[in-house]
Amino acid sequence: MAIRGVAADHVTLRRNNLSVVLRHVHDLGPRSRARIAEETGLNKATVSSLVAELVDRGLLREGSADSSRALGRPGQLVELDGTGVCGVGAEINVDYLAVVALDLTGNVVFEKRVPVDVAHLGPDTTLDRFAELVQEAVAAVHARQGQLAGVTLAVPGLVEGETGELKLAPNLGWTEVSVAKEMRARLGEPTYPLHVENEANLATLAAYAELREHDLVLLTGAVGVGGGVVSGGQLLRGAHGYSGEVGHMPVAPPGQTCGCGRTGCWETVVGLTALLRKATDRDDPVRDPSLDVEQRLAGIVQRAEAGDVRTLDALKDVGTWLGIGGAILVNILNPAVLVLGGYFAVLGPWLEEPLEKALRGRVLAPEGGGCRVVRSDLGFGAAVRGGAQICLDQVFADPTQLGES
Amino acid sequence: MAIRGVAADHVTLRRNNLSVVLRHVHDLGPRSRARIAEETGLNKATVSSLVAELVDRGLLREGSADSSRALGRPGQLVELDGTGVCGVGAEINVDYLAVVALDLTGNVVFEKRVPVDVAHLGPDTTLDRFAELVQEAVAAVHARQGQLAGVTLAVPGLVEGETGELKLAPNLGWTEVSVAKEMRARLGEPTYPLHVENEANLATLAAYAELREHDLVLLTGAVGVGGGVVSGGQLLRGAHGYSGEVGHMPVAPPGQTCGCGRTGCWETVVGLTALLRKATDRDDPVRDPSLDVEQRLAGIVQRAEAGDVRTLDALKDVGTWLGIGGAILVNILNPAVLVLGGYFAVLGPWLEEPLEKALRGRVLAPEGGGCRVVRSDLGFGAAVRGGAQICLDQVFADPTQLGES
Repeated sequence: MAIRGVAADHVTLRRNNLSVVLRHVHDLGPRSRARIAEETGLNKATVSSLVAELVDRGLLREGSADSSRALGRPGQLVELDGTGVCGVGAEINVDYLAVVALDLTGNVVFEKRVPVDVAHLGPDTTLDRFAELVQEAVAAVHARQGQLAGVTLAVPGLVEGETGELKLAPNLGWTEVSVAKEMRARLGEPTYPLHVENEANLATLAAYAELREHDLVLLTGAVGVGGGVVSGGQLLRGAHGYSGEVGHMPVAPPGQTCGCGRTGCWETVVGLTALLRKATDRDDPVRDPSLDVEQRLAGIVQRAEAGDVRTLDALKDVGTWLGIGGAILVNILNPAVLVLGGYFAVLGPWLEEPLEKALRGRVLAPEGGGCRVVRSDLGFGAAVRGGAQICLDQVFADPTQLGES
Repeated sequence: MAIRGVAADHVTLRRNNLSVVLRHVHDLGPRSRARIAEETGLNKATVSSLVAELVDRGLLREGSADSSRALGRPGQLVELDGTGVCGVGAEINVDYLAVVALDLTGNVVFEKRVPVDVAHLGPDTTLDRFAELVQEAVAAVHARQGQLAGVTLAVPGLVEGETGELKLAPNLGWTEVSVAKEMRARLGEPTYPLHVENEANLATLAAYAELREHDLVLLTGAVGVGGGVVSGGQLLRGAHGYSGEVGHMPVAPPGQTCGCGRTGCWETVVGLTALLRKATDRDDPVRDPSLDVEQRLAGIVQRAEAGDVRTLDALKDVGTWLGIGGAILVNILNPAVLVLGGYFAVLGPWLEEPLEKALRGRVLAPEGGGCRVVRSDLGFGAAVRGGAQICLDQVFADPTQLGES
């Protein structure tokens, strides 16, 4: 594979090789300089110099002696220095605000989730509270002498890639909120990179980091249904950042009105509201939106496990519709994996069989084009993890972007 | 933007910079060495050395004196040497075989199309004739002392990326034909690269080369309906090369049986057969498959221009269904452009209005996410052009892959 696209000089070449060594140690674990040289094809002197710079920058550190070598002089291992750099991901969703700070090794440095009725509170007050939450995470990073690689803000709606403006979030009732600009002002015009991104896209990146499948589709189920696509190892964003709006594919029979005002959206037959409508009566406590969603889902699981016919029928129906819409995605994208996130993951044991049956019946390629269906175990924290990781990915791509420590 | 992914040494660096200079002259036209240096940021001595190597390799040549400089010593222009290298694209489709050879500047060196009833003839005889056609193109390249960068074979079906096996081509009635292996044998185990690719994917690459939009979706309309996706400047292939099967999205009402044996496929309401069923009687000559498809389409155009109500109603119906399925693609992929190819391009003037109306009504992002609908003017030669270009792209990506002339 050739490097391509931009005229490269020796500075670019060194930056590339710093990135190669840092990713190598991240992906494959602690190892000696000699082994890094063998495995990457770089010569030993170059590796020593690259490692020295990465240590200076607080990204690698000396580890223990290499006990894996039976013969010859034992090499010193180098390993990721988790303490030096952190990325922060924060999320606004329908009924909560959340934040996580991850260090370079992926460990959680700080984590918090606050129940908030966002649609009621409106943008101004919500963003005030959201900024306070982000400040807490930033303070936690600074308290341990860490450098902040950046902050990514996740929102459940259409984000214009270049400006970070939230154009439309049907389930929050927000339109045209300048989230990036408003948050920069509230955070005191910070010098660290700050980006806004669709929450399903970030959850998809988190699933990608977990599964390492270069072609995957994630479906996140809540009241709204979001999707994200990784193709050839790249998150698919589209021309303006509006990709992945799978919840509004017009595949359902008319009947229920969607949060977007249309009928026929996929969301109206596979969203959480659709499941609850089919499985429960109007006054059933699992419909109560003031209760925590995980608690409500536990109620559904309990009934399914007890063999409740109405619950099982509703799950089968949702699973079949998941397969019908899923077949569209698989025919277009041919992913290796279809990942179920959000409530789809929790109820996966009952959704998967009808889903896979419908999928295999409707995908042109034999055996569903080889697509496996798996459940994400990142739960409702997937988007904030993806947001923090995207910041850390920038450090792996260009280890010279942060100052030397 | 950082180069990334593989450990790079000075050989890689030079290869990258050869590619940068060659693409630069291709994209922006003849220019002096001094100007290339200014525009790419490479230093003048490096550019001179890179240009000298590209001239030696028969990819660039000295042009006329630079008349654009009013002051100072006039520089010599360097330009693409179109004569040195060619790529070949060849296509098997339902009712024809076709081939084109393009030189590095995109000029047609050889072109031929032969009407063949492929489904009747079967794989063995078809591939014999196909190999003869490819040999003619290869001979034409060699006759002008050109180097052959490679041959790409386009087929209307599911191609397994790694092996070049055609798994399934519903409209040919072929299953599991080892096209790459069979053709290599018939061509005498050639040393040039030979690849097999889905025809809609290749037509998509041709549209991409023409439009230079980094996020586009192509729809090709014939009896079957194919699709291709370019996202972030990369053709989306999927995990096994089975992407783009848009014709089999389950969005249509049941009723007509699709070529794949299912009902509900998009193809059954937007394919050429669906249009003809709605617009014409059973014995209408425009339904006659033994006539050339362009001639039959001219008959439809004539009726539409004359205001024939049945024809106009059928076109409006197909246009609306194009918009309904198109909305799915736009919601998932957010392309900048939706390109109409094949028969959709010919009848575009009547399809576009209902298409755009349905699209805008069903895409979540405002104004269809900024997606424009355009007609391809590459006609039924798009796939072979894309096939030839893919070979030439390899030369642009790595100008050292061919021997020095």
